[in-house]
Amino acid sequence: MSGLSKLSIIVYSGTEDKLIPVGVIAQGAAALGYEVQIFVTGWALLRFLKKSAQPTWPKEFESMVPALAKGMQANRVPSWVDMLKEAKSMGAKVYACSMMASVMGLKKEDFDPSLVDDVVGVATFLQEAEGGQMLFI
Amino acid sequence: MSGLSKLSIIVYSGTEDKLIPVGVIAQGAAALGYEVQIFVTGWALLRFLKKSAQPTWPKEFESMVPALAKGMQANRVPSWVDMLKEAKSMGAKVYACSMMASVMGLKKEDFDPSLVDDVVGVATFLQEAEGGQMLFI
Amino acid sequence: MSGLSKLSIIVYSGTEDKLIPVGVIAQGAAALGYEVQIFVTGWALLRFLKKSAQPTWPKEFESMVPALAKGMQANRVPSWVDMLKEAKSMGAKVYACSMMASVMGLKKEDFDPSLVDDVVGVATFLQEAEGGQMLFI
Repeated sequence: MSGLSKLSIIVYSGTEDKLIPVGVIAQGAAALGYEVQIFVTGWALLRFLKKSAQPTWPKEFESMVPALAKGMQANRVPSWVDMLKEAKSMGAKVYACSMMASVMGLKKEDFDPSLVDDVVGVATFLQEAEGGQMLFI
Repeated sequence: MSGLSKLSIIVYSGTEDKLIPVGVIAQGAAALGYEVQIFVTGWALLRFLKKSAQPTWPKEFESMVPALAKGMQANRVPSWVDMLKEAKSMGAKVYACSMMASVMGLKKEDFDPSLVDDVVGVATFLQEAEGGQMLFI
Repeated sequence: MSGLSKLSIIVYSGTEDKLIPVGVIAQGAAALGYEVQIFVTGWALLRFLKKSAQPTWPKEFESMVPALAKGMQANRVPSWVDMLKEAKSMGAKVYACSMMASVMGLKKEDFDPSLVDDVVGVATFLQEAEGGQMLFI
């Protein structure tokens, strides 16, 4: 494994289930020495605020959420927030999308500074992501 | 930045919110000089027709759509259609998936020619995408 | 085309519509000689079991499912299961995520052995995926 591998994740969907793999993949890749970069946009922005929105689950799988939460506790799986913080402690960067922040009336000071490093535009993100793996979640 | 960077986007989900990042990313990457290729398939095909289907929003976030639309207008954010056309004017290509088109009873002449360049198979798409970044939206 | 191209797919969403492109892309890439690797996690795990869960469709497009199913039959499009098996016969590998399997109380013997090759962790998956294209579906 080369220390130069790069993984960029665009986090858009915003339902709570999809934030779990964001945490897992970011932490896993950072632990492998990857350069990890996360670009939060769309509905997902609402979960990275100082006054965070309530979790939203996909309608199709709502009935299974209690069992999932119980299974995560029983297996001592950390929350996606804790996994993301762990990834950040290993060098991962988290950016909020400047355009969608404006559209939603969000300013830099509205974002949780323990999660979001900066507010940047898509061009900046794409340039940093260039040549690496990229996921849209 | 090398002019040889390549970004391919598979557009499947078809809800209107997910078409916004298709426009933003395509336009942003094309402006950076990337070779951009978009493969429209699944439910998303219904939004690329001459007689386009009505927009569909994810059930979980329906209540927030009016605020989002208002924010986009206030910030003069172009529609995803206009962003995609801008990307196309910079060289981006948009293809409809031949298999899903057949499944949905759609012919080449049903697609909006200002959006869709051609109807191709997945093998053609994958070969053009080879070696570049690829997103599934 | 080089025989060394590599495509890795993280299959998470779990709605039935999103499993179709998993089958199509896996089969198409395997036929082109790509090294194909599929990492099943999240809700999607429930469709890879010996006692598989019932298909779940996205609420937004439920009304269109009968027409889609009819179109697939009329065009003799194989099921995603058959497309995935075809991809596997050409060398594709399918792994279940060990963490989410534990969270859902699933053991290796619960998975359909004609679909799932092994249960592995995200680090193993990321290392095998390194340097190739990667999709999150």
